[in-house]
Amino acid sequence: MTETNVGDHVAIFDTTLRDGEQAPGFSMAVEGKLAVARALQALNVDIVEAGFAAASEGDFNAVQAVARSIAGPTICSLARLNEKDLDAAARAIEPAARKRIHTFIGTSPTHRDAKLKLSKEEILERVARLVPVACSRADDVEFSPEDAIRTERDYLLEVCRTAIDAGATTINIPDTVGYSTPEEMTDLFRFLTSSCPAHVVFSVHCHDDLGMAVANSLAAVRGGARQIECAVNGIGERAGNCSLEEAVMALRTRKDLFGVETQIDTTKIYAASIALSRVTHQPIPRNKAIVGKNAFAHEAGIHQHGVLADRRTYEIMDAESVGMPSNSIVLGKHSGKHALAARARALGFNAGPEKIEEVFPEFKRLADTCREVTDADVVKLMTGRGSDDGRSGPWRTRRIELRTDIEDEVRPYARVTMKHDDGTRETVQCEGGGPIDAAFAAVCAIAGVAGRIVSLDLRHDADGEDTRVDAEATVEVASRQYTGKARETDVADAAVAAFVAAVNQAAVSEAALDENAPRRAAADSESVA
Amino acid sequence: MTETNVGDHVAIFDTTLRDGEQAPGFSMAVEGKLAVARALQALNVDIVEAGFAAASEGDFNAVQAVARSIAGPTICSLARLNEKDLDAAARAIEPAARKRIHTFIGTSPTHRDAKLKLSKEEILERVARLVPVACSRADDVEFSPEDAIRTERDYLLEVCRTAIDAGATTINIPDTVGYSTPEEMTDLFRFLTSSCPAHVVFSVHCHDDLGMAVANSLAAVRGGARQIECAVNGIGERAGNCSLEEAVMALRTRKDLFGVETQIDTTKIYAASIALSRVTHQPIPRNKAIVGKNAFAHEAGIHQHGVLADRRTYEIMDAESVGMPSNSIVLGKHSGKHALAARARALGFNAGPEKIEEVFPEFKRLADTCREVTDADVVKLMTGRGSDDGRSGPWRTRRIELRTDIEDEVRPYARVTMKHDDGTRETVQCEGGGPIDAAFAAVCAIAGVAGRIVSLDLRHDADGEDTRVDAEATVEVASRQYTGKARETDVADAAVAAFVAAVNQAAVSEAALDENAPRRAAADSESVA
Repeated sequence: MTETNVGDHVAIFDTTLRDGEQAPGFSMAVEGKLAVARALQALNVDIVEAGFAAASEGDFNAVQAVARSIAGPTICSLARLNEKDLDAAARAIEPAARKRIHTFIGTSPTHRDAKLKLSKEEILERVARLVPVACSRADDVEFSPEDAIRTERDYLLEVCRTAIDAGATTINIPDTVGYSTPEEMTDLFRFLTSSCPAHVVFSVHCHDDLGMAVANSLAAVRGGARQIECAVNGIGERAGNCSLEEAVMALRTRKDLFGVETQIDTTKIYAASIALSRVTHQPIPRNKAIVGKNAFAHEAGIHQHGVLADRRTYEIMDAESVGMPSNSIVLGKHSGKHALAARARALGFNAGPEKIEEVFPEFKRLADTCREVTDADVVKLMTGRGSDDGRSGPWRTRRIELRTDIEDEVRPYARVTMKHDDGTRETVQCEGGGPIDAAFAAVCAIAGVAGRIVSLDLRHDADGEDTRVDAEATVEVASRQYTGKARETDVADAAVAAFVAAVNQAAVSEAALDENAPRRAAADSESVA
Repeated sequence: MTETNVGDHVAIFDTTLRDGEQAPGFSMAVEGKLAVARALQALNVDIVEAGFAAASEGDFNAVQAVARSIAGPTICSLARLNEKDLDAAARAIEPAARKRIHTFIGTSPTHRDAKLKLSKEEILERVARLVPVACSRADDVEFSPEDAIRTERDYLLEVCRTAIDAGATTINIPDTVGYSTPEEMTDLFRFLTSSCPAHVVFSVHCHDDLGMAVANSLAAVRGGARQIECAVNGIGERAGNCSLEEAVMALRTRKDLFGVETQIDTTKIYAASIALSRVTHQPIPRNKAIVGKNAFAHEAGIHQHGVLADRRTYEIMDAESVGMPSNSIVLGKHSGKHALAARARALGFNAGPEKIEEVFPEFKRLADTCREVTDADVVKLMTGRGSDDGRSGPWRTRRIELRTDIEDEVRPYARVTMKHDDGTRETVQCEGGGPIDAAFAAVCAIAGVAGRIVSLDLRHDADGEDTRVDAEATVEVASRQYTGKARETDVADAAVAAFVAAVNQAAVSEAALDENAPRRAAADSESVA
């Protein structure tokens, strides 16, 4: 069997704002949807499914706002196959330069008998009657037979042909319950694409219930699909949809196998992922493919070996190709001398091969113990200072008082007492945006460090009577970042302890870097030359 | 080509404690490793890879501790193919009832030329010489040709045959760089299994760099693999390994296609996932397949439709099958009347069909607005009370003072002032394990609620000058849980505001439930009858 009726462009249909947004915990207000839509525009997705206009007034307004604001991608609204839904969808997408209605009806036995109470013939009649209505209100129409995977194959083909005859130019096959496998997907799409006219684009919509949404989507492409429905960070109902970034990067990295292209600007992937994470307040898992903090940890390892023995190694992904800042790369036990030297040079050290050879065993020991080697650790390695107690640092907290007063409109403040290893005691009171913010200012003032909070992650675990809070604070001092970790039984204590750990590292490192300044200046002029 | 030399048992080789633990952010101390190992024992995994004994003293001790404490699974240590590593591995696993050494050597051109500087013949010689050494020190030996996917196929087969002749009974094929696809995996495993003796178990080890680790592992099983290397929650280097829970549940759910079995007790999956999350302090993403909070949200939807039209619907996953407490199921816009009625009955209401019909439109409106309908919302629906302002509640915070004092050994305390909607003002000072804990006690005392903190999630976002903290607190009052959310610019303020939101809901709901008590008692006796 051959894939006759397909080109080599795979359209990316993004449903972050529709299927993604429907999932509990991922809801977005109009402003948030617009922020994500702008990121999708930068990615250059083919189609933005902005919502389900008939579902609620809020959804209608969001679709309309996206249609008004976003240029480039086709703007789409979902609609059930009835007049009211089609009308709402058409009105909501009206302002867009290019408009699509995505309409669906259940076709599997379950949907026909239990949900819709319609016969096979009644469904065909409705498709033939209403798809033309959709076509009259949009530039193009996409039709989905819901629960397609569990629909009898012959009937599924009949429904698709009816929708195509009625004017639909994209036919989307959803694996609604998320239980399909790649083999089955390739087989089904080969059957459908070889049985339908060449101008029709077949689309795939997968869910990740068994962890196979990406593989299933790519298997559909192997079978002739030329549109993938997907979402940033793989969000969506239940276990989510096919992840946009994984599908796009897999097609790109394995072009040798798939032989197709998307029009996505991959360097905008990381920004889109972060934008969505911020809007929905859901963190990106560390081990998330493509966009997680650990995803490119291998950069530091075998990829810098310099040996490109295989065609694929030329096309391998790197953090830059998805727009991830390279300083997010983790130095750890799998990092080699090249990675260590690069980081040391970035910190201003004259990191020649001999110096790197000298400190490398200690680097490996550190990586073994603490797994993640920070900038502060690198400074310690290069200066040979504080390697034993640097993480606990010279300053220790003795007392914290915090106050927030809403009625008196007094600025929140903190009063912090710390003790230095040399015996010095200092108490400082600072104001801030909130009491913890004020406590951070007080810690910086005592340690004599001009710091800014970059991030503060807190994780609270209550297990019966046993409670603990893990805090990780990253602070920026003179453009360098320091990360401190702490575990306490209380949120406020843990946050302050993490600040203190970070600020202690900064205090030690910045002092070392200052002494090293002449050498750094020399290194800078070298690198300019 | 047929799969001749394989049975229908697929061994689960868990590498959470080795490959998983190597990833930055997932390191575990010995105690943590033991807690996870106990969860793996409860899961009934076939093999626990407990670490890489030669890597460091810490790793050696951890492997030994697991070998001493865990009965049931085979205990395994990783070892490079050299005398020193094999000796360390053998000593570490010595206490186990059943011992495996997993030894590896790179075989791809990149590994041979750049990393090992060994010829093809030298590698074969080393395999022939050292695999027997491993065999003399363990009950069985697993051999991995590292970077197998990028090794020339004929040479790969030669290496495998040499290892088998030398005594290895498991041959593991790692997709070291994570770039393979299901089609390629099935093909490669068909080639290898059909070319090697029937007693050998072929194993697959996948990474999720392109989101296909699970599909690749299952495709290998289609090709004859009978061991899957995987990790709980899919942790591991970079984007992680194949997820244990996804692979196991996919094989079980799609037994119609795969025709194989694992010996995993799936009802222990959720407990293992939570144990790992606690030990590593890494949250489980909401949309994580199988174990995420949203994974079984569909329970409330079509699966309760009662129509089991297809063979697969009989084998479909439910939350109970993976040991997830059913109250973790989310009521949302996709939930039907059955789900609402079940929750209302669980809360003690006499939720007959007429009452449910009456409140269902309001339920849908709520679900549309706030996506996640809480127990407190259900109480409001059933009692018709407070539906407009219930979320903001009667009590508002006016002032918070917190103090932690390490030196004086004074118990941390909080002094909280709140104002009731009726004009009442109350100030209470409480002690606690920490200042935020004390503030929670003060909030409960003022509102007259006997609450316990179940969880407190905080998410801090700093975007340039703009900082915000989202807090979500779940508190338990009389065995019912209430969740409050807040967004503030400061950690301490956000935590307290989330408590206040949860406690307000509890105060309103518990009062309503008390009035409803006689009806509840009647409902209870009904359900007993």
